[in-house]
Amino acid sequence: MMRYTLTAKDRHSDARCGVLTTAHGEIHTPIFMPVGTVGSVKAVHARELKEDIRAEIILGNTYHLYLRPGTEVLNAAGGLHKFNGWDRPILTDSGGFQVFSLTDTGRKITEEGVTFRSHIDGSKHLFTPEGVMDIQRKIGADIVMAFDECPPGTSDYRYARNSLELTQRWLERCVARFDSTEPLYGYEQHLFPIVQGCVYRDLREKSAEHAVSLNRDGYAIGGLAVGEPAEEMYAMIEVVNRILPPDKPRYLMGVGTPENILEAIERGVDMFDCVMPTRNGRNGMIFTTEGTINIKNQKWDRDFSSLDPAALAYVDTDYSKAYLRHLIKSDEILGLQICSVHNLAFYLWLVREARKHIQEGDFVAWKKGLLPKITRRL
Amino acid sequence: MMRYTLTAKDRHSDARCGVLTTAHGEIHTPIFMPVGTVGSVKAVHARELKEDIRAEIILGNTYHLYLRPGTEVLNAAGGLHKFNGWDRPILTDSGGFQVFSLTDTGRKITEEGVTFRSHIDGSKHLFTPEGVMDIQRKIGADIVMAFDECPPGTSDYRYARNSLELTQRWLERCVARFDSTEPLYGYEQHLFPIVQGCVYRDLREKSAEHAVSLNRDGYAIGGLAVGEPAEEMYAMIEVVNRILPPDKPRYLMGVGTPENILEAIERGVDMFDCVMPTRNGRNGMIFTTEGTINIKNQKWDRDFSSLDPAALAYVDTDYSKAYLRHLIKSDEILGLQICSVHNLAFYLWLVREARKHIQEGDFVAWKKGLLPKITRRL
Repeated sequence: MMRYTLTAKDRHSDARCGVLTTAHGEIHTPIFMPVGTVGSVKAVHARELKEDIRAEIILGNTYHLYLRPGTEVLNAAGGLHKFNGWDRPILTDSGGFQVFSLTDTGRKITEEGVTFRSHIDGSKHLFTPEGVMDIQRKIGADIVMAFDECPPGTSDYRYARNSLELTQRWLERCVARFDSTEPLYGYEQHLFPIVQGCVYRDLREKSAEHAVSLNRDGYAIGGLAVGEPAEEMYAMIEVVNRILPPDKPRYLMGVGTPENILEAIERGVDMFDCVMPTRNGRNGMIFTTEGTINIKNQKWDRDFSSLDPAALAYVDTDYSKAYLRHLIKSDEILGLQICSVHNLAFYLWLVREARKHIQEGDFVAWKKGLLPKITRRL
Repeated sequence: MMRYTLTAKDRHSDARCGVLTTAHGEIHTPIFMPVGTVGSVKAVHARELKEDIRAEIILGNTYHLYLRPGTEVLNAAGGLHKFNGWDRPILTDSGGFQVFSLTDTGRKITEEGVTFRSHIDGSKHLFTPEGVMDIQRKIGADIVMAFDECPPGTSDYRYARNSLELTQRWLERCVARFDSTEPLYGYEQHLFPIVQGCVYRDLREKSAEHAVSLNRDGYAIGGLAVGEPAEEMYAMIEVVNRILPPDKPRYLMGVGTPENILEAIERGVDMFDCVMPTRNGRNGMIFTTEGTINIKNQKWDRDFSSLDPAALAYVDTDYSKAYLRHLIKSDEILGLQICSVHNLAFYLWLVREARKHIQEGDFVAWKKGLLPKITRRL
């Protein structure tokens, strides 16, 4: 049985700290989960994730893993943990987001599920709630996500309501399938429902209430940070978190900037994932404790200082800004590696600091002081 | 002053061990030098080079470094060691090979030097022996190479002779410029001449004798492994090494396969560099103590064994063949990283083993036993 123990609660906000116990170890919340799309966090060694970035859990994408290497190879390996050598907790998304964002030609949504074409070779596939549960059983993640429709951020109320109703029927099918099947590798897995409803308060409430009625080990908030103003996202988080049970972890999917994360923590969110640190990093954008840097800018070409004076990871002191700029400008793989390790170390540092300040009781003041510093452009 | 101390000499061949002392530390020969084209060994962190691969010296490419980041940035940094953070010895080639292999349109060779267009932006540049010495002073490598013409491997005798004569005049200009200038960063640098002459015995002899007459701290053999049969290459090495002084290090440029390296060590060569471990690695070809592997082959898709049972580097045990295959097939950067670290670790293991067996007196027998094993295709 998954255990979630709250260890601290902020007096001035809804921020909280907890320890989530899984078959592959403990996760200290609030936590950021690096994204390991096909099982690997892009440009980062497993050793670096553990020892340098100090990641406690990573995320895998069901859509990508299903296409490559495929569930048969994963099953033969004994699950994703055995396959990629990551022996700490793993969460897999349900593929819903990728089916709706990476495939377009010939995608068809029906009551049964979604038919789509692979973005790799155009081959045709069907994802159903039951099928996606079976795939995630084979992947063997500690936390598996329900299969949902991810409506566009611009959806009107009518579309959003119909979409949510479909997502709710799919969620019930996910729960039925998940609860009637056994884990394949001898350890327990846990299904988290996803609260949808776009930016419509009543739909979010309805979705959250429905999810809670299914009494699971944790809950996710999906469909945010898809183009709506940040204030609307924060408002939706507040609406949902008033309904989600306080003694279960809450996961805000695909979010976000350091600012988004701190604001969501303040509103009681516990878990995050986002491709931003790695994807922006590969474009030469690095987050530092002194502000953000576009390392491609000419201004860094003779700045031989370390990447971040706070030395969040070994790359910060092993390499200088000028050298990193040279690597990125020269399309050297090492440049992508350095930015990825640094940015993930920054995100993990950010949530560790958040935990510390929640425990010390000054989270809101700390956040207020930190944000102007880390969000300025250097 | 550079010091080269021979520490062991094989009884049954010309193989030998030595210690080359530079301002940035000792190099144990025979040694393999990973290629750090623009200052970075592709896909490999400096920390991995030192601690995992155990590289003692890396190579930088003058042509690439001159174009990017440029000598002014390198000079502002205080040289390449300060710029890339590699505080062990560095050798830079002279750019000759790149000028002749990477640029083609509008290249013009005159007595003065070579005019060429950058492969990056088409801009026009002139490399002269004097200019290339000045560039390598600014880069600040411990060992700098003379500027030579690199004739095609298919050159006829007449072309090869004329080319060699030009290379010899350029070598004298390199020596004159090098000896009349001072190092810029407070430590001594050393100029190695390059013996050319294609596959023509008399030209190789003439070139070696001329190089030796200049009395430098070490000598290189260039213009081999450019398409000629391996036996011809070995014959040329024998011709040249009979003339090169036994108490100075001998560097065979751009060579080669593990077999090439062991055969050249047997013939008295001390230093090697080659892009093969990294370039082939990025194509999914890995060298192991049990044979070579094309990791893209279907046969590895469910082979969950470690990359190399000899565990030459942490990647060998952190990842399996099946996982590496998945990463390479999925174009994941981490796949390139793993292959690069592994293959370089293999090459450094190979020369460490060679040193050990030269010291123990069984080099030839060891080589004979090892080659069939490591060269078979798995």
